Order: sequence, then structure tokens, then C-alpha cells
Amino acid sequence: MGATPQLEVLLKEADITINGSNPWDPQINSEQFWTRLYATGSLGLGEAYMDGLWDVADMAEFFNKVLSSEVPSGIRVTPNLVWQIAQARLLNMQDITRSKRVAAMHYNETEAYRASLDQRMTGSCGYWPDGVTNVDEAQEAKLDLVCRKIGLKPGQTVWDIGCGWGAFMGFAAEKYGANCVGVTVSPDQAAYGRERYKDLPVEFQVTDYREFDGKADHIVSMGMFEHVGHKNYRAYFEAARRAIKDDGLFMLHTVAAQETTETIDPWLEKYIFPGGVIPSMGQIGKAIDKLWTVIDVHNIGPHYDKTLCAWYENFERNWKPDRSPEEERFFRMWKYYLLCCAGGFRARVLQVWQFVLSTRGVPDGYVTQR
Amino acid sequence: MGATPQLEVLLKEADITINGSNPWDPQINSEQFWTRLYATGSLGLGEAYMDGLWDVADMAEFFNKVLSSEVPSGIRVTPNLVWQIAQARLLNMQDITRSKRVAAMHYNETEAYRASLDQRMTGSCGYWPDGVTNVDEAQEAKLDLVCRKIGLKPGQTVWDIGCGWGAFMGFAAEKYGANCVGVTVSPDQAAYGRERYKDLPVEFQVTDYREFDGKADHIVSMGMFEHVGHKNYRAYFEAARRAIKDDGLFMLHTVAAQETTETIDPWLEKYIFPGGVIPSMGQIGKAIDKLWTVIDVHNIGPHYDKTLCAWYENFERNWKPDRSPEEERFFRMWKYYLLCCAGGFRARVLQVWQFVLSTRGVPDGYVTQR
Repeated sequence: MGATPQLEVLLKEADITINGSNPWDPQINSEQFWTRLYATGSLGLGEAYMDGLWDVADMAEFFNKVLSSEVPSGIRVTPNLVWQIAQARLLNMQDITRSKRVAAMHYNETEAYRASLDQRMTGSCGYWPDGVTNVDEAQEAKLDLVCRKIGLKPGQTVWDIGCGWGAFMGFAAEKYGANCVGVTVSPDQAAYGRERYKDLPVEFQVTDYREFDGKADHIVSMGMFEHVGHKNYRAYFEAARRAIKDDGLFMLHTVAAQETTETIDPWLEKYIFPGGVIPSMGQIGKAIDKLWTVIDVHNIGPHYDKTLCAWYENFERNWKPDRSPEEERFFRMWKYYLLCCAGGFRARVLQVWQFVLSTRGVPDGYVTQR
Repeated sequence: MGATPQLEVLLKEADITINGSNPWDPQINSEQFWTRLYATGSLGLGEAYMDGLWDVADMAEFFNKVLSSEVPSGIRVTPNLVWQIAQARLLNMQDITRSKRVAAMHYNETEAYRASLDQRMTGSCGYWPDGVTNVDEAQEAKLDLVCRKIGLKPGQTVWDIGCGWGAFMGFAAEKYGANCVGVTVSPDQAAYGRERYKDLPVEFQVTDYREFDGKADHIVSMGMFEHVGHKNYRAYFEAARRAIKDDGLFMLHTVAAQETTETIDPWLEKYIFPGGVIPSMGQIGKAIDKLWTVIDVHNIGPHYDKTLCAWYENFERNWKPDRSPEEERFFRMWKYYLLCCAGGFRARVLQVWQFVLSTRGVPDGYVTQR
């Protein structure tokens, strides 16, 4: 077995050679690789990697080349993917109970995040303006950018939807004198944040965002919207609308795609982001109709390539060097996640948008922050 | 007759007194005003103004207060408005033949535009950063901003969809060394521009945008999308997609609203913008799906308040002082158009968005221009 004639042509156009000598050329360790790939498409590609059936020196660049090309069309869509799409349409996979289960599964990976992320445990794309050289600085630059985008003043309250380990809230309280309330569905994240920020006006609520009933001067939400599910977009924006004071600003930071879909890549869905959906402008636009006015959109997609590569460097350095076969499989799973996504941002099939939203525009105009 | 008890309450909440002494208080010259208002709503309000049945010293501020309040809900929706909505749904009012008729009607008002606009005859919202003090400077600042947003280089080609009298093309050719092709459905606009820019690499095509078949490094379109009609949004973005080279940028500048609708105010529809529709983010997002990636959105809504007030100052100064009754009615129509819109932007029920779009994102990231 091997590449089909059609796939051979597509790989050649993409400058990829099977078992070639460039760092982005995949090395096939077992003929089983091909069976897995043809049987289950991109899911099989990832699982075959976890099982050591192939390797590649520069994985992010491999995915950049694949995703910038027509190669994906050479791998046939399997019934598995069709079933996933059907499931996404029929069920609201992000009902409240399920969203708690999803978080439990997701955040058992806390150890891997700790090994990968910056000092503040910031779980979304960093910001790499000139002069920033590492991911700790990139995340501080991002958190500061977000505070500037909402015009944060001392004593103001901020609601953080999907606050994770509290990186934003800690920063905003320390550096801008804000009072913050964050919601997360993960008790572990809340416990971590309550301990770390116990001397700051930072509150963690373990609840679903639809259950929040406070009022805030501003709202922020970073790396959360991708987990909301497209059927809940309207409810998400309605919850935010109920919670904001007059003339407050809502900074929404999300991974985004050009095309409206109802699923993500099946490997990512199965191993990393169960229930995840990458939104399009059409989906967001429809969901904010009559609720929110778009004041500013900033596309920082290429910054996620850098962030994910930096996370992988941290992970490789910090993760246990002596690994059981099961731990090795986890290592390869995590590496695959970080670097296939890095390639997706580099290939520009994935974007990151930071929206600034207001209830009806900003008096005298908004001063753009970058 | 007079205000209904319900309308009295709403006016009071909006700080408006009928025949009051503030500059934004309307002065009713005839009891017929009320009949017109109740019979035909906002259409009647505008027509009553044209006929001299009411006056107001500061019209923009009057509309700001009305549109920031619940006053519009106190004027009942008439069958006329319902009919307009039905018509918009049933017909594609912007088919190619009609779009030429619309332009003919619209641009018989060229004299009024000449009396109102800046030296370059720029027919869309200007840009008023610090230091800009008049509309000539504001339009130059806008045209320069647009050139910077698309990263325009000498020798590059730009397609201007709805080029009007050629203000952008003249500027881009003079200051950036660009080669420009513009489409307009108005032979008068093309004739004006061909004469004015005869020594520059600027070409006018009198055609519908769907008939353009060139390729350009970049595309710009300012103040045109509002005339396209919601049923043609997809065709508009497809035409632009066909015409752009790889990694080119498309700068779309349009008036926008928070809410998805299929009509504009009936007075504006009848007298100023036949077939006009103000787009929402949902409508634009849906229409660009799989075609365009959003790189940047800049909301300059408050700048249109300033631009429209400056246009009115020019118009009042330049328009013939001795007017026949018919000319007086035209004068009042034009004043009403400019200043009710100024109030709409001031009240933040209307926005202006400048989008930067690319076919699939910008390699290494986009540097925001403001």
C-alpha cells in the first residue's frame, strides 16, 4: 500500500515527499499507516501518529503545507465524519450538563497545560508585537491589550466568561485595580485560582455562563467561545447582554474560520475539544443581531502559530523524559494537538478574532488599541 | 390635534418639548403636521418638513434625541411601511436594469452634492482624526487611510466598485502611483471623472459591478454597498472575489446597523436612496462565507455625524439664496436628509464599518492602520 496516484499528485504539488529528506516530510514507520489514513481520514492520521506509525521533524510546517494545499481532498471522507456532522446537527451537544462533563474531560489535561503554558496559565492565543520574545511576555502583552481595549479603569468590575485558571482576572486586578468575577465549569480551575489570587478582588464561580446573574462594567471572554457550540451562540450573547452596564464594552477573543461549519476536525473533537465548534463571521453576526454592535475586530491569527510553537517548546522541556508507553502516547497526542493547530494558523485556514462589542456604539467614537 | 398622551410621555422622556425653547425643540407651523405624522409615520415627518409644516433650529440634535429614545414607538406603523417591507421581500429591487434607473434618479441630485461635498467630491463618510478641522481634510485623511489599509504600492492596480466621481482613484493615482479602474452606473459621474483625471492612469467604466471582468491587486468600495440590496450581497462579494489577485486586500466601507432589515426608512427610500438597505454584521458575514476572511473592522460611525454636518454647512453656504417654492422644497429635502442622518449617527443607531478582507488571511499578520 501507499499513497494513491491522486494523493501522490497532490502531495507533489504541496512540496511534500513521503519519507523525503526535508524537515516537513513525513517518515512512515509502518504500512498500517495507510490503512488508518484511508479508513478514518484525519482522525486516523492523528491516531496513527499517537501510535508511532509515522513521524515528522517539523510537524507545524508539515501541516502548514498540507492545509495550504489540496491534499485534504485526496483523503476520502469516511462514514465516521458524516456521522459526526449528523450528530452535531441533531443534538445540542452543549447542554448545561454536558458542558460540565466536557470540562471534566478537558481539564484532566491540566498537567499538560501546566507544562506548556506561560507563568500565568493563560489558555488562549498570546500577542507578539515587536520586542516580545517569549510566551510569558506574549501573554502579558495580550492581557494588557485586552484591558486597554475595554478601557479598564480602577474600581471597575469585569466579568470573565470562561475564566480558566484566572490569568486575566489576576492581571486586571493587579495592574488595573479591577474587581473581577469569573465563571468556569471546572472546580479544579476555580480551586487553583482562588488560592493563587486570594489577596486580590477576584472571585471564581463554578457555574455555567447562562446561570450568571450579576452586572459588570465590562465583559471579557477568551478561548471560551470555541467550546460554546453553535446552537448556544445566541444564548451566550444574550447572557452577556443581560450582564453589562450601559456603555460597557465586551471583548470577545475566539478562534475563527472563514467557513460556517457545525463540527471541528474529528481528531480534535475526540481527543482535545469535545463539542468544540470554530465560528464564522456569519454565525457570530447572526447571533449578535439586535444585541451587540461591532466596534472593532482585530485578526491576530498568525500569533497563535507562535503561541502554539512556544507551548510545544515548553511542553517538550517540562514533560517527564522517562515515559511509559501510555505516557508516550499522551506525549504524542499533545504534541500533535499543538503542532497541527500551529500549522492550521500558519496556513491561514484558522484565524483569531478579538471583537470589541458595545450595546449601541461608543459616544464620540472608539480609539483603537493595538 | 397634537401629540397623543402616549407620545407626550415619550417626548418628555426624550427631553423634547413641542414648540419649546431649546434649539432641538420642533416648532409646529400648522396643525396639518399631526395628520401627516399619524397617517404616514416617518415618511410623513419628512414630507411635512419639506412642505414647511414644522421647523427646528438644530435638526441633527433633534434626531439624535428622537432616535436615542422610545419616541419612534409612539408613531404607529402604517400600511405604507408594511407594503414597502413586503415589496422588498418579494422583488429583487436591485436587478441590473433597475440599478441603472436608480442611479439616474439619484444622480440628478449632482448639483446638490457639488454644493455639499469636499473639493474631491467624495461621497462617503470622512475621517476626522485629531488635527483635521474641515471636510476637505477629512476626506483626504479617509482616502489616505484607505490606501494605507490596503498597503497600496506604486504600480499596483485597484478596482473601485461604485467609484462615484472618482475621488479615491484620483487620490490613489496622484499620491500612491496606483493604476485605477472604477465602475459606476452613472454616465455623468464617469464623464466628470474622465475630464478631471484625464492625465492620470484612471479609467471609468459605466457598467454594473457584476459585469466587471478584470483582475486587480486590491479592491475598494466606499458608500456603494448600501445601494446593492440585500439579495445581491452574495453576488457582490463573488464579483469582488473573482476580480482579486492572490493575497490582495479588499477594503469595504459601508454604513451599517445593529439589526438585520430589508428596508431603510421610507422617507430616505423615497427621496434619497431608492432601493437602499443598511447591512448588519449577520448579513455581511453570511454573504462572505467561504469567500473572504475578515482581517480588520474599524467602526467610524461618529465621523459621519461630523461629515454630514459639514456637508450641510457647505450646502447652506453654496446653495442659491433666492429660491422658487420648488427650489425651497428641494432645499428642505436636502437639509432634512443630511441632518436626520447626522442625528442617526450621533444617536448610534447607525454605524460606519471599514472592513479589510482577504481571501484567506495575511501571511505573518496584518498591521492595523488608523
